[in-house]
Amino acid sequence: MIIAVIGQNECSQELSQLAEAVGAEIAKRRHTLVCGGMGGVMEAACRGAKKAGGVTIGILPGKNKDHANAYIDYPVVTAMSHARNAIIVRTGDAVIAVGGRYGTLSEIGLAKSIDRPVYGLKTWDIEGIVPVDTPAQALDLIEKHIEKS
Amino acid sequence: MIIAVIGQNECSQELSQLAEAVGAEIAKRRHTLVCGGMGGVMEAACRGAKKAGGVTIGILPGKNKDHANAYIDYPVVTAMSHARNAIIVRTGDAVIAVGGRYGTLSEIGLAKSIDRPVYGLKTWDIEGIVPVDTPAQALDLIEKHIEKS
Amino acid sequence: MIIAVIGQNECSQELSQLAEAVGAEIAKRRHTLVCGGMGGVMEAACRGAKKAGGVTIGILPGKNKDHANAYIDYPVVTAMSHARNAIIVRTGDAVIAVGGRYGTLSEIGLAKSIDRPVYGLKTWDIEGIVPVDTPAQALDLIEKHIEKS
Amino acid sequence: MIIAVIGQNECSQELSQLAEAVGAEIAKRRHTLVCGGMGGVMEAACRGAKKAGGVTIGILPGKNKDHANAYIDYPVVTAMSHARNAIIVRTGDAVIAVGGRYGTLSEIGLAKSIDRPVYGLKTWDIEGIVPVDTPAQALDLIEKHIEKS
Repeated sequence: MIIAVIGQNECSQELSQLAEAVGAEIAKRRHTLVCGGMGGVMEAACRGAKKAGGVTIGILPGKNKDHANAYIDYPVVTAMSHARNAIIVRTGDAVIAVGGRYGTLSEIGLAKSIDRPVYGLKTWDIEGIVPVDTPAQALDLIEKHIEKS
Repeated sequence: MIIAVIGQNECSQELSQLAEAVGAEIAKRRHTLVCGGMGGVMEAACRGAKKAGGVTIGILPGKNKDHANAYIDYPVVTAMSHARNAIIVRTGDAVIAVGGRYGTLSEIGLAKSIDRPVYGLKTWDIEGIVPVDTPAQALDLIEKHIEKS
Repeated sequence: MIIAVIGQNECSQELSQLAEAVGAEIAKRRHTLVCGGMGGVMEAACRGAKKAGGVTIGILPGKNKDHANAYIDYPVVTAMSHARNAIIVRTGDAVIAVGGRYGTLSEIGLAKSIDRPVYGLKTWDIEGIVPVDTPAQALDLIEKHIEKS
Repeated sequence: MIIAVIGQNECSQELSQLAEAVGAEIAKRRHTLVCGGMGGVMEAACRGAKKAGGVTIGILPGKNKDHANAYIDYPVVTAMSHARNAIIVRTGDAVIAVGGRYGTLSEIGLAKSIDRPVYGLKTWDIEGIVPVDTPAQALDLIEKHIEKS
């Protein structure tokens, strides 16, 4: 499965640790992580995934693959700015939101528009997001959800 | 000025009337209306604009310009599905949200990500949206905001 | 009808005059001109259209509508770099190529991929482009083609 | 390095064998293959890469990852139709064209617009494409070119 992690480009130590744990959990369960490829939550999640032996894809907004964070295995260079947000959530079979500002809000809206399930950790309080307490709980619910469908 | 109107694809009579009044107000003040080109709030706003002698642009998600609503003067055919939401809010100098579901939520997030001011009528309760009571109030605030910048 | 004009961003005096005549012919026949909104062939075609009382739409590659040429009525701001080339040719019911380098070549390929007819004036020698000698001939053929379909 | 392979969606046995050899050569040299993820040349190249133990990324035009060919490891779901062609050539550090119709022509134009080197095997005769006789020669030239830059 490919799981999208969305969240803000700069973040607190607390969110960073949470995002790293999300990435690690995705990798431990042998799923692939896709994200926007930049810093903050995205970078922390990728670091967690790589430390746990996982694979990471970054859907970059700019023209230069060197702007990807250091933990991206496969940089996809869109040069499409925020329009690439739609690609991130379509590429994921499910979405985990960690923190997040307006870019993340747009990804939540895009994900719900196309019926991707969204699981939330310390993120926007939007109807339709499934709040979870831990990364493991998010992954348990995702695996149960996808199995059924 | 070009003003983006965002809102859901199917809507109640109440929202439809509100959207039509928004479109009329935009046209009366000689601004151009841009929207997603489809039904519901978008169609009602375009109808209001055309009745008041205005101009409308529809940024269509599909491949066929014939899917534009009947009040679109200039259909822009993107074939990009929801990724076209980013184009709508970039093309507008300001954004007015009327009602709206998840697609509209994504446009609110995209607009705020790129510092477009967003004015809201019976829409999502999101920090950063300026709530207004009437279409005229939205336009008054937009004209004041753009003048300053 | 909406007619796309494609061609290079900087051009010779000769190509500029040709593009201006294309824009004028489009406007005289009451069609709308869509293009990439930038300089060279695009700017000359828009100038011709505006002098003849026509309407112009620019599908801009960047983030800033102020980068549109001075003859664009409706700047559509994509922030999508070259990916916006696909929108230009989809938005046109037919395409006229004037001169052109690699960007124009990509638009010819995109247009032919989606069955838009392409008429060429001093452009790439590609199978499937209909070569014409004058702007008027291009418009005659376009009007005949669209009537039939 | 990531190398883009472009070519038509349905192809002859001869082109298929050539594309498979290209994919194998990319994989043997430990590069990653990116392509449009569909059939014909794309599928054959991916099959070659997978048989040789390589990694493949498919930048899909549609909404459904199940439309990727059977040899895609990482399907990136754009829902952007031909606009995704720009992403394929940006994601590649270099491009190899095998055969190809108008979609491939558009990718050649897009690649050259952004200064990606393009190597051609039985493809369009366009100035700026470096013609090669074998997949190995293409890879030799790519590795030399990238080293220098």
